[in-house]
Amino acid sequence: MKEIVMADRAGFCFGVKRAVDAIVDALESRSSAKEGEVWSIGMPIHNPQEVARLEAMGLKIARNADEVPNGARVFIRAHGEPRAVMEGLRGRGETIADMTCPHVRRAQERAGEFSSRGYDIVLLGDARHPEIQAIMGYVDGPVDVVANVAEAENLPKRPRVALISQTTQQEELLAGIASALVPKAGELCVCNTICKATVERQDAVRRLAGRVDGVVLVGGRESANTAKLRDIAKANGMDVLWIESAEEMEWGWFEGKMKIGIAAGASTPQWLITEVCNKIART
Amino acid sequence: MKEIVMADRAGFCFGVKRAVDAIVDALESRSSAKEGEVWSIGMPIHNPQEVARLEAMGLKIARNADEVPNGARVFIRAHGEPRAVMEGLRGRGETIADMTCPHVRRAQERAGEFSSRGYDIVLLGDARHPEIQAIMGYVDGPVDVVANVAEAENLPKRPRVALISQTTQQEELLAGIASALVPKAGELCVCNTICKATVERQDAVRRLAGRVDGVVLVGGRESANTAKLRDIAKANGMDVLWIESAEEMEWGWFEGKMKIGIAAGASTPQWLITEVCNKIART
Repeated sequence: MKEIVMADRAGFCFGVKRAVDAIVDALESRSSAKEGEVWSIGMPIHNPQEVARLEAMGLKIARNADEVPNGARVFIRAHGEPRAVMEGLRGRGETIADMTCPHVRRAQERAGEFSSRGYDIVLLGDARHPEIQAIMGYVDGPVDVVANVAEAENLPKRPRVALISQTTQQEELLAGIASALVPKAGELCVCNTICKATVERQDAVRRLAGRVDGVVLVGGRESANTAKLRDIAKANGMDVLWIESAEEMEWGWFEGKMKIGIAAGASTPQWLITEVCNKIART
Repeated sequence: MKEIVMADRAGFCFGVKRAVDAIVDALESRSSAKEGEVWSIGMPIHNPQEVARLEAMGLKIARNADEVPNGARVFIRAHGEPRAVMEGLRGRGETIADMTCPHVRRAQERAGEFSSRGYDIVLLGDARHPEIQAIMGYVDGPVDVVANVAEAENLPKRPRVALISQTTQQEELLAGIASALVPKAGELCVCNTICKATVERQDAVRRLAGRVDGVVLVGGRESANTAKLRDIAKANGMDVLWIESAEEMEWGWFEGKMKIGIAAGASTPQWLITEVCNKIART
């Protein structure tokens, strides 16, 4: 029988739990499925299994704001939406449940404030990620998105630069980007908008090093913060099996491993983690 | 005969030249030595030979503002003075010639602005250096002075921090300190107040590497920026002879060296550099 060592921080962060709980509440409190449709713009979280559960309860998912029917109740996911999308929805008089994570909201506000004060904005993150897309929507004027130090080193020299981070980035990388931008800015303001929950989950993975024979990482393939946990586990010399659900378990991977660490991204629901633990414990 | 390779930037920077020229003008334009005494608070620049020349012309040097006699003309050196000293002199109605270097003035202004906006101030530099002492005099509230990354890492975590540099520091060190402070500040504003003249003299020393058999560095023992040039030359594998004047030349050092690089700090007057070059050329 395998021994399971849980990372001491794993699964839903505050912002994701808040958004999912609100959607579940809205779906459960309807007197009928017809009355009061509940919509989300885009996947409410980067976890297909949890999204499937919400859809089974009646959640409708629009690809964009235009697909949301008039009069529907619209949930804004934890990643947030660009300012123009929010204003468009308000203009149409939709009932908006804004579940933008407060940490993401802070990054949006900083981007808006510094850009209105004449700073050039540099975002650390993945340019295609909805959180970065939403933050970009609060910047008036040009904005650069960098994913690594080399990209930051290619930026031009400017008088005033504000560096703002996607909430799921690593602090070490933000520090490295800041260091690369110091010679490129007369004044550089670094907003450490990295979420504590992300850092805590990252530290918890680091603490598994040396204590386990391998780490099973539970999380959606699209989840940026889960990908970071994989990188950190590997960088700390751990063998990683990244799965979305218990069904994906590769039993060959477990051969010769007795102590199994379990880690999970901030968008992984507890029920998925529990299923994985139970399945391993039964082997 | 030795071959001399001059660093392509050496000697007086704009701020020092401006201050020294103004003192010389004031001394030369007096109709008599009695009429209109010319005072400096502290050594006007960190170069004893140049200071001796100015004293021979009639400059009086006070240890502090209280030593300046009433009615005298007071020169504020390029390093600047704390706000309280400036206000004290103005209150006494002295004729002040403020030769604070514009780059230092900018650092003082940034320190004052950010501290009045509620930021905790961190200064990169030497806590005993008059420039840092002057900048500290523009901060309302606590201020930390750090000289290296280890000292920055020991600072507590705070919501808003402004990092301001002594103008003669190295950009790489400012970048390293910024990197160390990112995890310690919700918002970190880095003011790159490092003077271009300093960076240019540093780059000029780097460019001597591989082209000379050794570097003669001309500059005052108290000159912080000259000490930096020594560090950079050594870090780039060059043998360095640091002298204040041609009299200090150690001829043993030159044995076996044919190509001699010449570098000089921002407070080294041209006449001293010329004397050194002439003496080497005559060997």
